[in-house]
Amino acid sequence: MEFIHNEIVRMYDVDLQGITHYSSYYRFFTNAIEDFSLSLFGKSLSNVTKNVWFVTVSSKAEYIHPTYIDDPLSIKLKVSIKSRSVIIFKFDVFRHEKVVCRGELVQVAIDRERWKTTAIPKFVLDRIKKNH
Amino acid sequence: MEFIHNEIVRMYDVDLQGITHYSSYYRFFTNAIEDFSLSLFGKSLSNVTKNVWFVTVSSKAEYIHPTYIDDPLSIKLKVSIKSRSVIIFKFDVFRHEKVVCRGELVQVAIDRERWKTTAIPKFVLDRIKKNH
Amino acid sequence: MEFIHNEIVRMYDVDLQGITHYSSYYRFFTNAIEDFSLSLFGKSLSNVTKNVWFVTVSSKAEYIHPTYIDDPLSIKLKVSIKSRSVIIFKFDVFRHEKVVCRGELVQVAIDRERWKTTAIPKFVLDRIKKNH
Amino acid sequence: MEFIHNEIVRMYDVDLQGITHYSSYYRFFTNAIEDFSLSLFGKSLSNVTKNVWFVTVSSKAEYIHPTYIDDPLSIKLKVSIKSRSVIIFKFDVFRHEKVVCRGELVQVAIDRERWKTTAIPKFVLDRIKKNH
Repeated sequence: MEFIHNEIVRMYDVDLQGITHYSSYYRFFTNAIEDFSLSLFGKSLSNVTKNVWFVTVSSKAEYIHPTYIDDPLSIKLKVSIKSRSVIIFKFDVFRHEKVVCRGELVQVAIDRERWKTTAIPKFVLDRIKKNH
Repeated sequence: MEFIHNEIVRMYDVDLQGITHYSSYYRFFTNAIEDFSLSLFGKSLSNVTKNVWFVTVSSKAEYIHPTYIDDPLSIKLKVSIKSRSVIIFKFDVFRHEKVVCRGELVQVAIDRERWKTTAIPKFVLDRIKKNH
Repeated sequence: MEFIHNEIVRMYDVDLQGITHYSSYYRFFTNAIEDFSLSLFGKSLSNVTKNVWFVTVSSKAEYIHPTYIDDPLSIKLKVSIKSRSVIIFKFDVFRHEKVVCRGELVQVAIDRERWKTTAIPKFVLDRIKKNH
Repeated sequence: MEFIHNEIVRMYDVDLQGITHYSSYYRFFTNAIEDFSLSLFGKSLSNVTKNVWFVTVSSKAEYIHPTYIDDPLSIKLKVSIKSRSVIIFKFDVFRHEKVVCRGELVQVAIDRERWKTTAIPKFVLDRIKKNH
């Protein structure tokens, strides 16, 4: 099961070359995760628990086709639990059924007080496993 | 008649103080204009004609209440034609029926080649007057 | 006396029209205030005291000439104390001696705990009056 | 030989967690490339030739230590030519001699008219090889 998030390429996403700036896709990825979390928990991941932050430890993207202002994009998000502390988010960005970009973010659960790796809270794990 | 555009406050909109950074409201304003234009013309204003750009000559906002991550915002847009070349966009940003921010952008129609003020194309005027 | 902050127009500041997007000037304004504060206090205003935030309550800009990628800009900042809680920042953005944009931000000192207007700390006032 | 570009972490780079948002490092990377190009050519890569764009085809970063508002960062840039059309930019981001982030962007030379891969112009190659 996957989560779909929709975006429209905006004026400020497009650079001098007339195409979406590579960094804007990370904005789309961030939004996709937040909408996924809103759909599961009614709030974004950073608000789901008082004690745990989810901190990005790596990010990557490959750009397959340029996209343009007003393009409707669908970001297909796959979430997987890699270990007790690590979540992997994979993104396929589509424009009209065609993949234009692929990406990945890895996030680690961090104890807010001690700023150390911690376990992903059980209710978060359960909800992700059940709804995804 | 007014146009309504919806936004959600994102992680990257919120600053160290935990509230939406003042500059993010301009992103919401820009999006509201683009969605308004998409609804009228199927494309954003910058794509509506080959010869005319709409260039922002002034912007302003006042911030009445702070907003927070995950807040659902409704941007109510009023468009008015001030002269043959000038469009005024006014924004009231609501969170649950309460105004949290007000803003205004003024744009001027510019001939792309000569980079001089020009008349707003008639079909743009007509469509705005009719649908707004 | 005034504070000067320098910027270069970047790829991501420029939009489809080939000119600096109106919202990027607010990024330049923010940077100018932070560099001003770094020069006075060795840290940005949000870090200068543990109890007080400086929250933007209004912003505005007028755009006089378009600017382009790689343009060197000088932002001339004037700071004035309007009342016990209110600071006004005025900006003149120059490219080669010519004003291309003017702007203003108004910030209010807020008690972080109670989220109420408070007095600007005395050492902040003194330092601004002395060095500006 | 390497190119060094300096940044300061800004208010809008920092998110709700109090640390630099992962996507801001891509802004630093973009700025580092533009300053490198300014130092070699007096303009950014997108302006160096009339016929060629340099388009990002992949990006990645790993985040080793969190950084905070006002942190001074040094981005060490290594440029290498991978093939007749492909440039690789590698970034090591330092705070006080310690690596906090590593990243990489791959750009391809594209003929602007035909939007096809093309050769990197010879004078660009020569200048990069000589000065780097």
